[in-house]
Amino acid sequence: MKPQPLILRKDQERRLLAGHCWIYSNEIDTQATPLKGFAPGQPVEILSDHERWIGHGYVNPHSLICARIVSRDRSHPLSPALWVQRIHDALTLRERLYKRPFYRLVFGESDGLPGLIVDRYDDLLCVQITTAGMERVRGEILAALEQVIRPKAIVLRNDTSVRELEGLEQGVEVVLGQPADSLTLIEHELEFEVSPLTGQKTGWFFDQAENRSRLARYGVGNRVLDVCSYIGAWGLRAAALGADEVLCVDSAQPALERIIANAARNRLDQRVQTKRGDAFEVLRDLRAQGKTFDTVMLDPPAFIKRRKDEKEGAQAYQRLNRLGIELLEPGGLLVTSSCSFHMNRDAFLRAVQQAARRAGRSLQLLETGQQGPDHPVHPAIPETAYLKTLFLRVLPDF
Amino acid sequence: MKPQPLILRKDQERRLLAGHCWIYSNEIDTQATPLKGFAPGQPVEILSDHERWIGHGYVNPHSLICARIVSRDRSHPLSPALWVQRIHDALTLRERLYKRPFYRLVFGESDGLPGLIVDRYDDLLCVQITTAGMERVRGEILAALEQVIRPKAIVLRNDTSVRELEGLEQGVEVVLGQPADSLTLIEHELEFEVSPLTGQKTGWFFDQAENRSRLARYGVGNRVLDVCSYIGAWGLRAAALGADEVLCVDSAQPALERIIANAARNRLDQRVQTKRGDAFEVLRDLRAQGKTFDTVMLDPPAFIKRRKDEKEGAQAYQRLNRLGIELLEPGGLLVTSSCSFHMNRDAFLRAVQQAARRAGRSLQLLETGQQGPDHPVHPAIPETAYLKTLFLRVLPDF
Repeated sequence: MKPQPLILRKDQERRLLAGHCWIYSNEIDTQATPLKGFAPGQPVEILSDHERWIGHGYVNPHSLICARIVSRDRSHPLSPALWVQRIHDALTLRERLYKRPFYRLVFGESDGLPGLIVDRYDDLLCVQITTAGMERVRGEILAALEQVIRPKAIVLRNDTSVRELEGLEQGVEVVLGQPADSLTLIEHELEFEVSPLTGQKTGWFFDQAENRSRLARYGVGNRVLDVCSYIGAWGLRAAALGADEVLCVDSAQPALERIIANAARNRLDQRVQTKRGDAFEVLRDLRAQGKTFDTVMLDPPAFIKRRKDEKEGAQAYQRLNRLGIELLEPGGLLVTSSCSFHMNRDAFLRAVQQAARRAGRSLQLLETGQQGPDHPVHPAIPETAYLKTLFLRVLPDF
Repeated sequence: MKPQPLILRKDQERRLLAGHCWIYSNEIDTQATPLKGFAPGQPVEILSDHERWIGHGYVNPHSLICARIVSRDRSHPLSPALWVQRIHDALTLRERLYKRPFYRLVFGESDGLPGLIVDRYDDLLCVQITTAGMERVRGEILAALEQVIRPKAIVLRNDTSVRELEGLEQGVEVVLGQPADSLTLIEHELEFEVSPLTGQKTGWFFDQAENRSRLARYGVGNRVLDVCSYIGAWGLRAAALGADEVLCVDSAQPALERIIANAARNRLDQRVQTKRGDAFEVLRDLRAQGKTFDTVMLDPPAFIKRRKDEKEGAQAYQRLNRLGIELLEPGGLLVTSSCSFHMNRDAFLRAVQQAARRAGRSLQLLETGQQGPDHPVHPAIPETAYLKTLFLRVLPDF
């Protein structure tokens, strides 16, 4: 059955022709194609006002992003064959890049599958569906994943608030196999026990794996502070690189317990300690005690979740980074991250530089990391680039 | 002798207090401190209009950038001891990062030594002095380099047009030892014969070493194209990673002869070929012949040297990248660089994305590299960040 057309208003196709795939509701010619004529998730053909064919996609009349392009090839509409092809292409990239099957397998728009996230833990897939368009073809997607990957288990981790923007319910559901909520993940020779059914996001932050591996390049020294440590991926990496004293700070007791267990598992328990508390408070306490570190790693949750939090969030980044900088020995390494999409790389660097000025220190930016290559950025969709990790040497003021 | 004061106009100190170290001539209160009262390179104390002490620096009344801050510590004026300290700090970073003594040892403003560039080839130092302020203390700087590094030879590679902005003459001069114009540089286990006295820049592009080492992460496939190859650093790296057929393209015959010699030296001569010609013409010829590659590396000289060339330069990047993209197999790797400071990372990515759209391909940005950590970026001085190297997977349009 031929998809219904969705017609744009005059001159609204430029961003789409440049490669973006989102269409906002105010860009639709609702006289020609009234949105209430569509069901959430319904497939459509997107046309310009002068009927230029732009792409196959899906629509959601109840969402601000009311349609997304899925295919720019007229002969390849939304279909099981398309999902198989896209998942296969995504797999090819990851198999080229990763020795072990632990990675983000599908990163939405960047892999040509808007509304779909898949994290792979060996033979378990954690799937997140964030749009009505993907929800409608959920059965086809799961079948395609089974066909291409042949996993033993699949869990839907649909417990994310972004689903509400599309009128979808939240929940967690096992749809294949009987996965346990504890498995062993290997990242660059370190083993971690993770909880893909109940952990934060899908249990692991794959997006920082590449940046963590960069620590080896820079060296971490002896005393290392890991702030917002979650289950210890950064801190244990530092310990494995030779740091004698690693202090992991997090506000969640279960995360800290996992760190202890994971440290023991990698025979690093003599090198790793934990401290429960609010990051700002713990850092202020350490400063008051006159503690210093050779490396400080700051990887907080997004301080800026919505554009209107921009100013306040930037100040929070500045405060946290100032504390981190003040705890560093001269010549020490600051590894500082922001996963706030609404703060771009330049704004983040500005906040960190302001923090350094206030602390009376000078900075040398050695490298700017982004999310790893299993979270590729779509060059025409700025929203697909969110993670910034700066590697800085901190010196006395010059 | 106490340095003379240089007084800023009202409200001109903000950028400096944020960390920048350049002062433009229109920011000076020339009533209070007439510029013609200063000799080129003379040391000064920089003060705000309400006599807030800002820093020690040097002045050049004949230059648009008429003064640069060198020290923000009142007790550390310009002196031989300061040069020794700064060079020592610079060395500490490089020794931490590099197994072998081949790197940029001093990167001007980013190392607290505005106007000074030093490249290290083991026991030979190539020094470039770009400001009158550094020229005035040239003897002190050379003595400090000898004291900290103990090189066998030092050559001044002052054959750069930026010296003209400061009223300085161009030239090359050996100031220590008797260096030969041919030495062996080792970059990640590959040997290269380079010419530090007569080669481009100081004979080698250290700034791309880190990005070249990233090729190993991505793999290059069998057939590789290296465009604007100079003496083969990228192309030989690809051959060493297993590529069977590497084609290096450059317009300079001596560079191509060096490639052949360097390939033989590393026993890679069966894998590397050269083609002399204009990059655009050679790529168009290859396309006309229906040739394709698994990896294309584009590392042209700066197409945008002055701000006014911005638009034309962006188009040149777009054209070159379109040709590169069209020569790639589906799923191939594009490694594309811009060293134009006047084109920032976002603008460069936009040009490459436009090239992909015109070629009817989709891109996945896997990583954004910058200049290596021996060229640290000063976070408050955007001018210190110039190199962008994008690693992209090129797919059929989606």
